[in-house]
Amino acid sequence: MRQTQKYQQYLRERKTQIDQALERYLAPDVNGFTNTVEEGMHYAVCGGGKRVRPLLVLEGAALAGLPPETVMPAACSIELLHTYSLIHDDLPAMDNDVLRRGRPTCHVQFGEAMAILIGDALLTKAFGLLTYCSNEEKISDQAVLQVIQLLASAAGSRGMIGGQEMDLASETMLPEDVPLERLQQLKTGALFEYSIVSGAMLGAMPMEHMKYLASYAQNLGMVFQITDDILDVVGDQTLLGKNIGSDEKNHKTTYVSRYGLDVARQKAEFYTEQALRALEKIPQDTSFLHWFIENLLQRKQ
Amino acid sequence: MRQTQKYQQYLRERKTQIDQALERYLAPDVNGFTNTVEEGMHYAVCGGGKRVRPLLVLEGAALAGLPPETVMPAACSIELLHTYSLIHDDLPAMDNDVLRRGRPTCHVQFGEAMAILIGDALLTKAFGLLTYCSNEEKISDQAVLQVIQLLASAAGSRGMIGGQEMDLASETMLPEDVPLERLQQLKTGALFEYSIVSGAMLGAMPMEHMKYLASYAQNLGMVFQITDDILDVVGDQTLLGKNIGSDEKNHKTTYVSRYGLDVARQKAEFYTEQALRALEKIPQDTSFLHWFIENLLQRKQ
Repeated sequence: MRQTQKYQQYLRERKTQIDQALERYLAPDVNGFTNTVEEGMHYAVCGGGKRVRPLLVLEGAALAGLPPETVMPAACSIELLHTYSLIHDDLPAMDNDVLRRGRPTCHVQFGEAMAILIGDALLTKAFGLLTYCSNEEKISDQAVLQVIQLLASAAGSRGMIGGQEMDLASETMLPEDVPLERLQQLKTGALFEYSIVSGAMLGAMPMEHMKYLASYAQNLGMVFQITDDILDVVGDQTLLGKNIGSDEKNHKTTYVSRYGLDVARQKAEFYTEQALRALEKIPQDTSFLHWFIENLLQRKQ
Repeated sequence: MRQTQKYQQYLRERKTQIDQALERYLAPDVNGFTNTVEEGMHYAVCGGGKRVRPLLVLEGAALAGLPPETVMPAACSIELLHTYSLIHDDLPAMDNDVLRRGRPTCHVQFGEAMAILIGDALLTKAFGLLTYCSNEEKISDQAVLQVIQLLASAAGSRGMIGGQEMDLASETMLPEDVPLERLQQLKTGALFEYSIVSGAMLGAMPMEHMKYLASYAQNLGMVFQITDDILDVVGDQTLLGKNIGSDEKNHKTTYVSRYGLDVARQKAEFYTEQALRALEKIPQDTSFLHWFIENLLQRKQ
């Protein structure tokens, strides 16, 4: 119990650091925002969010011996990229969602054309921010370039965007034909894996340890997705900050619609076990990551 | 006349090299395309185009002593980025154009959701491709990182995307209030400038020469835009590969609508003069760039 409080405190502190850094990178200058695109970037990113991906960057870096401030640009970068993907996924031509992080989605707030541009600008800035890591003495230029390449791959047509295509295609498939695991590995797992590996890579962690971190993050992504599917059915809309029941509305095949609530929960536990097994292979102290996935399994938001 | 033939021949060769490299980076593998997003990326990029921006990368690099093959990833990168911007600009929520490079636009061909994803994937891959330049012995990791940062800035919310926001906003402005020069400097000029400077930067050209290249490219961008506006009124739709009259249809303020054809042509000549003046400050042989802008001034497509 005392350990849980310690980790929750640690998590809050990290999240505050990340939120403050995001605010710094996206704040208006003294004369206000340059334009609506920048206002929208700030609105979408700084309006809340769990910051799981940036946290994973910081944890990967910590395990490789880098303090959080040295990789903060990389941590914020992946949050910008994640937010762009939410904005574009929410568009009328995609999922047509109107509520996100407790507020109107970007296209409701700023119009559809602006929402497209705001997403584009966040994706662009995500890559720009990454280059800032090279200002750190402890981080080699080569490592930063490797991370940029990794991000382009994880977020690209064979990573996250490939997952989003599958997701859209699955709406017109027979539910039993939807490749659910593969879809989620790409749509969620790819960025989770990228996040923790990028932090470790910036700190030049040996490849044989990085692969276990990657496995942890892929399994964490599955647990995240399955609990997301569960919360979309049994969650509290106010806590979640988004409409529940949207998967059913969009005829999405989810872990719950395919397997029912009980089996979905079992699967989340299975992936948690897999993740913990991967952690055991890493010599560094991974007790926070251990706690983190078990905490995720119990999440209400 | 003989010189013109020589440069036209040179231009054709360069364009062929660029087209072949783009095809290599976007080709399906032996089993076909991985998914519709990758099919769409190939469709949009490899369906033609003048390749002005990649050409500028190669010319910037050549002036800094780098042969074309060493910077081909950077040259192709900017064409992917440019193509993404066309795909998103053509969307129904933006300009709602149906014809581009002589073929149906991406959203007509693949649907709106796919067109958004195809654009996103091209933007993502543009950054990924840039990192390949670091495999060249003659190019430093630091230079590649500088170029990535420059691209994020030129293509971002205070560069090209800022210009696109202005462009959309100008549709509801009084024509005389539209900041036409500024809009075009951002929307077209930023990427033109980036292109030639990135090539030069990869070759470690001294800053005092790069700034004149930047000026040349900004002025080239203006000439390109003004002749584009002129062709949208008097051009041949078949040669252009896109619908003419689309500016008027979208109530766009252009150089022609604001100043009339004659003054627009004079302005194009003025910017050409400015560009040539910048070239004079560069010690290297810039005769091709000299010919290139004069040729652009006369373009029919």
